[in-house]
Amino acid sequence: MTITTLGLDADDTLWHNETIFRLAHGRFAELLAEHADEARLEQRLAEVETRNLRLYGYGIKGFTLSMIETAMELCEGGAPPEVVREILAAGREMIAHPVEPLPGVDETLAELAEGYRLVLVTKGDLLDQERKLAASGLGDLFAAVEIVSEKTADTYARVFTRHGTGPQEAAMVGNSMKSDVLPALEAGAWAVHIPYEITWAHEVAEAPVGHERFGALQTLAELPDWLALRSQA
Amino acid sequence: MTITTLGLDADDTLWHNETIFRLAHGRFAELLAEHADEARLEQRLAEVETRNLRLYGYGIKGFTLSMIETAMELCEGGAPPEVVREILAAGREMIAHPVEPLPGVDETLAELAEGYRLVLVTKGDLLDQERKLAASGLGDLFAAVEIVSEKTADTYARVFTRHGTGPQEAAMVGNSMKSDVLPALEAGAWAVHIPYEITWAHEVAEAPVGHERFGALQTLAELPDWLALRSQA
Repeated sequence: MTITTLGLDADDTLWHNETIFRLAHGRFAELLAEHADEARLEQRLAEVETRNLRLYGYGIKGFTLSMIETAMELCEGGAPPEVVREILAAGREMIAHPVEPLPGVDETLAELAEGYRLVLVTKGDLLDQERKLAASGLGDLFAAVEIVSEKTADTYARVFTRHGTGPQEAAMVGNSMKSDVLPALEAGAWAVHIPYEITWAHEVAEAPVGHERFGALQTLAELPDWLALRSQA
Repeated sequence: MTITTLGLDADDTLWHNETIFRLAHGRFAELLAEHADEARLEQRLAEVETRNLRLYGYGIKGFTLSMIETAMELCEGGAPPEVVREILAAGREMIAHPVEPLPGVDETLAELAEGYRLVLVTKGDLLDQERKLAASGLGDLFAAVEIVSEKTADTYARVFTRHGTGPQEAAMVGNSMKSDVLPALEAGAWAVHIPYEITWAHEVAEAPVGHERFGALQTLAELPDWLALRSQA
């Protein structure tokens, strides 16, 4: 087999993202501690986020709006102004949060860029993702960047045809079974799952254990060897 | 000269957008009528939007967050909960607003698509712009769609190289002198300005009167003739 093109997810694959959301959840729970216990708060926030996903899509701005909406619902008589102000500030700080590549990502991507066409494939706010890529210092390693609103089999077929030699000769690499692995396999590409320490509830799905084009690794640093083994097969 | 590729702006060029923002401004002013007169409100909102543009970029979600922030600042002791709820609802309604092509756009684009490669080039929220394109029914007329965070000369050079035969053989068409016309000219492309009934303050710039690759039309329906005249030159 031949793999010419690697699709790489960004958030929680190349750099921390979910931890930043978890920190914001923690801050949100503290802010509303007098008004709701944490379990109820988390449940309500998840419901509001799910309801708004269709309108807001993925990203920090939509998450901030959903936090405000949840606070309005949970506080008797509506959230106090200082709570709203704090949520707005939390959202701005999330956006401005420094971006640090996960351990080993720099070196591994530099190595992979020599043998493969690297394509960043990520969901989220356009400006936000562009800023993170620039701040990460990894931008020059990518032949192309695709910021998409959804990751479906069609998305991968289109991206790997446009920027590579088709899905059959491409592998998608990411931390989400649901967004990175399953639809890429469906498109006919290879897919490699590399778990992050925590997974957003919306991204949970079962591993396609036994699928011939599926791989499960612990870190990105293991990817070059995994690809080398496949190319000998 | 040869023009092979047409870049088309979306908001306020193909369909109404600024009117939807103006309606939201009006609703916002009503909501806060007890707390601030409209002139002061508009001024403060514009300041907050400008300050947040770097973080939020363009689009309805960022605008909604800026309305909330402005309300918190202008109301003595912070905005009442019902005001925040109303702003959230206004933002959601803006996103869900039906999309209707401006008069003549359907027919003109269908005609242009026969002779030119059409590329949609637009700023704003990714999901929001994709939804509007789908709702407009115009999607099939475009060979490519580029949703970008900024419209610079580099943006146009890249887009017209990727999707056409380079900026020298492309024309960008849109309602913003600042985003559609000037940077496209700088990239070496042709540029056609078609004014919308109102212009967002951030998008105002002087017309490059006398520039040999610049055209000013009243409606999109005039574009086929303008192009035909240029192709005889």
